[in-house]
Amino acid sequence: MKKILTTLLFSVICIASFAQIPGNDFGYDEYNSRRRDLFKKLPPITRQDIVFLGNSITDGCEWNELFGNSHIKNRGISGDHAEWMIDRLEGICKGQPKKLFLMIGINDLGAHVSADSTAMFVIRVLDSLQSGTPRTKIYLQSILPNNDSIRRKSAFLMPEIIEVNKQIKKAAEERGITYIDLYSVMVIPGTMELNPLYTYDGLHMNGTGYDVWRDAMMKYVK
Amino acid sequence: MKKILTTLLFSVICIASFAQIPGNDFGYDEYNSRRRDLFKKLPPITRQDIVFLGNSITDGCEWNELFGNSHIKNRGISGDHAEWMIDRLEGICKGQPKKLFLMIGINDLGAHVSADSTAMFVIRVLDSLQSGTPRTKIYLQSILPNNDSIRRKSAFLMPEIIEVNKQIKKAAEERGITYIDLYSVMVIPGTMELNPLYTYDGLHMNGTGYDVWRDAMMKYVK
Repeated sequence: MKKILTTLLFSVICIASFAQIPGNDFGYDEYNSRRRDLFKKLPPITRQDIVFLGNSITDGCEWNELFGNSHIKNRGISGDHAEWMIDRLEGICKGQPKKLFLMIGINDLGAHVSADSTAMFVIRVLDSLQSGTPRTKIYLQSILPNNDSIRRKSAFLMPEIIEVNKQIKKAAEERGITYIDLYSVMVIPGTMELNPLYTYDGLHMNGTGYDVWRDAMMKYVK
Repeated sequence: MKKILTTLLFSVICIASFAQIPGNDFGYDEYNSRRRDLFKKLPPITRQDIVFLGNSITDGCEWNELFGNSHIKNRGISGDHAEWMIDRLEGICKGQPKKLFLMIGINDLGAHVSADSTAMFVIRVLDSLQSGTPRTKIYLQSILPNNDSIRRKSAFLMPEIIEVNKQIKKAAEERGITYIDLYSVMVIPGTMELNPLYTYDGLHMNGTGYDVWRDAMMKYVK
């Protein structure tokens, strides 16, 4: 009888816990909730750290290994939007990291958010970071090009990417934030297409893509 | 004219490169190809390293941060199968890491591979690791339970998970490999269900799940 009561109580606790899945009210998905939750459980970010903040393109790399620097912390979340990012900055700002590299916005555009609104969301993230952790040296990376011949139906994104980059570059410069133009590094010269040497799916980096990224970024990271 | 020729030549190189997307002949997906490719570009694994090898449950964590150990390297690939893992062990074996923690098999079962075959694939990975890097201390982690009340249609997996764990535990013990029973840590006692305190989707760990994982593993990792 005692065992049955214990099991019943345990089940009620479990169901109550399950009912509180975070994220569902905010638009972001289960994976986003899971990563946010993990970040809260990890040891806090410190003043020695270098944070890589972004979506799947950030999430998919082992940055500390790529740059040979154990102070680098990956705060990428696959599928993340600039619009959603604003309410996950607190834990980062609290730690006042030494440097922060931001790349965000392609998933907003992919969800048919306008270039103007996407740029506004990115700039809102920049402003929150600057006010929340003023000692941190912030680097804004451009959104990368897509490749429509690989990733079908991404053609509509290409002029939008250029427009967002134009607006966020201007905002970064006005705020004294270093803007890193990875778009020009990754694009086929004279086109709006991501160089297929650097990707398998027209959106994310393959190993060669991350190699080129590292070479372009090394002077800022070290 | 020279510019047109250069652009043409560049395009031919790009198309030729794109034609060689790895992975498509082997059954695994683009993300798997991309992560394998990244792993080849990262600095090699060394004898001081601790490798976490697995699928999305491994991929989704920042293990070096969770355990506060910069020698930990994440070699998880979301969606990976035990069947596919065999041909990505070479880079790991070459480095002869100090320790290796393996968890794999749930995606084979999810793809309706039998428990016997899944166990066979896991054991094949163990044997390849033991022969490829005999100095490495290998730890085999059990497959974790699922939760069908959250992850609908996973009920069919539950007895299969228990059967695979039974077989791989026996194989590990026969080979002198430490078997770590995380299944019992994560399950609701007296059921086959993953404790919903540790998951949002019935399959992957949330922050609390990784916390519990760390506590159970700390004595083996440090």
